[in-house]
Amino acid sequence: MKADIFLGETKVVFCETFFSFFEDLLKLSEPIVFITDHNVKELIGSSIQRLLQEKKRSVFLISIPPGEASKSREIKEWIENELFSIRFPKDGSIIALGGGVVCDMAGFVASTYMRGVSFYSIPTTLLAMVDASIGGKTGINTSFGKNLLGSMYPARQVWICPQFLESLPKREWLNGLSEIMKIGFTLDPELLSLATKKMDQIVIFRSCLAKKQVVDEDYQDRGKRRILQFGHTIGHALEKISSYQLSHGEAVAKGMAIEGFLSYTLGYLSKNKWDSMREILKSCGFSFQVDPKISFSQIQESLEMDKKGTDQRGRFVLLQDFGVVVPFQGEYCTHVDDKVLCKAWEWLKSCPI
Amino acid sequence: MKADIFLGETKVVFCETFFSFFEDLLKLSEPIVFITDHNVKELIGSSIQRLLQEKKRSVFLISIPPGEASKSREIKEWIENELFSIRFPKDGSIIALGGGVVCDMAGFVASTYMRGVSFYSIPTTLLAMVDASIGGKTGINTSFGKNLLGSMYPARQVWICPQFLESLPKREWLNGLSEIMKIGFTLDPELLSLATKKMDQIVIFRSCLAKKQVVDEDYQDRGKRRILQFGHTIGHALEKISSYQLSHGEAVAKGMAIEGFLSYTLGYLSKNKWDSMREILKSCGFSFQVDPKISFSQIQESLEMDKKGTDQRGRFVLLQDFGVVVPFQGEYCTHVDDKVLCKAWEWLKSCPI
Repeated sequence: MKADIFLGETKVVFCETFFSFFEDLLKLSEPIVFITDHNVKELIGSSIQRLLQEKKRSVFLISIPPGEASKSREIKEWIENELFSIRFPKDGSIIALGGGVVCDMAGFVASTYMRGVSFYSIPTTLLAMVDASIGGKTGINTSFGKNLLGSMYPARQVWICPQFLESLPKREWLNGLSEIMKIGFTLDPELLSLATKKMDQIVIFRSCLAKKQVVDEDYQDRGKRRILQFGHTIGHALEKISSYQLSHGEAVAKGMAIEGFLSYTLGYLSKNKWDSMREILKSCGFSFQVDPKISFSQIQESLEMDKKGTDQRGRFVLLQDFGVVVPFQGEYCTHVDDKVLCKAWEWLKSCPI
Repeated sequence: MKADIFLGETKVVFCETFFSFFEDLLKLSEPIVFITDHNVKELIGSSIQRLLQEKKRSVFLISIPPGEASKSREIKEWIENELFSIRFPKDGSIIALGGGVVCDMAGFVASTYMRGVSFYSIPTTLLAMVDASIGGKTGINTSFGKNLLGSMYPARQVWICPQFLESLPKREWLNGLSEIMKIGFTLDPELLSLATKKMDQIVIFRSCLAKKQVVDEDYQDRGKRRILQFGHTIGHALEKISSYQLSHGEAVAKGMAIEGFLSYTLGYLSKNKWDSMREILKSCGFSFQVDPKISFSQIQESLEMDKKGTDQRGRFVLLQDFGVVVPFQGEYCTHVDDKVLCKAWEWLKSCPI
């Protein structure tokens, strides 16, 4: 299968193998800088660099430590200084080669380097393929919370190549699966069964297509796009509280459970669907367990910096059915009474697995 | 006189006094944060804050040290942390209140805080009114050069109020005059005599209007907008080499002299016009003198990071007449042979005043 879709200004190219898009890389303006992490560099980054150098391309590779801790101001500054050191010009090309961390960071760097240089993306994890590399959001974390600094800076082109998933560790599969389930619950329920049966290119393509519908309608994230934040209000809080020891996917799964609980408790979602939702998440391998030491007030404090929040309180995306988010007058998210939220948190804490 | 123009997405409002736009500020979404410098805070910032607080608005004021040294990553980080500390939300408003440094910094902060919040600008210097506050360029400096990090992030609204110029120091007048002369030489020659006769609201309005024509045509700065870089190639290099002791206007005036010399020497500009250009710049009060210790190789090194440069070499904007820039196949700038450039530099160094 080979197919292209446009997501805003981004051309998303789906292709089976690396060699089916190698020609595209040869057309990019030079110099080319890959931003990657140490693992991906070793697995494929250095080889790709060599292949391009054999074709006489001017190619550099900047590699950062893997993991969420790299999404920091310090690492951004370090990358920028590397770029300055090689006199990287405004008409060069930056390519993210890696997972969500690399895509978020490389896009942010590209957006502010000399007020913006051409940016491309080669996601190598399931999460980055279905979420981080498409839609234009870039960002880094600060001690105040996740993705609190960043920009809207869509890649010109994204190459999605499932070949890179062959060496993906199990935890990384779950990370991506969580975002696919999110799209299943909120936009395309057929994905819920498709993805649990067989994770293939069709599932990835379909997830991207569903994301495209929402992003094309509300690129600036002022309404409908907030659907894609399902599970992320509590998810981001849990990630931050765990100092990013909890993976994004694990945290979002727990966040979806909370928002499922809220959707049911507040009368939007039927009991059947709420039961089914928990079953689906569990069958994927997600755990609802949270550190029992985390207090409700810690959660509340973290929610103060929720980007879709108002009045220093987070807002939640709620379901009225699989594939149907409660619209809340075009806001697609809502405040929830503290008592109800506290009940949801206590319920999550009581989950045995 | 009260008039509005649209510059891209930015509404530029020209008004005589602060009170003719105070009503507009009352309509902004809260909380409102003014980013300003210590001088402007004392002169008007605190009073404006008080006036808005009397109208029950939630208003904060973040003040940085005046001067180009504040356009740093460290100050950006400090401002962001102040915003996080007050839990400044994505739906609040940031207003730049100050000169070029404040406008460049506040715009950059607004563009990356939570991936972008609403940004407004109240320029208080001539330079900021005719240049820094309009056109969407934001930026900070690094040790590698000027404005090397930044974003394209136009203010939603800019209020230009010459009342604020009443307390402007002489050096600041020259700073702004330099950008107006730049517009005169490249786009609107009538400004050359108008601005030297009487600096009034008409001159400011006309400068903005000329800038608008170019920015509307080439917002992304890939061709025609480079006209506005006249004088800036050498100007930025001199500012950086002087560790920003030289003001932007002084540096750009010397840069314009160099590009005038190049335009004449390379046969684009008549001797008459070149003689006249030097006279005009001198009559404004600009000096062509440079630190004789600066070597040509220092200049060359600084030009390696010129944002419109290619092949690690700066490019220059040349005149064929007042109001007419050499188009160079739509590039509006060109490389210049090192020997010719060196000659221009030696000429500048030999200028007695």
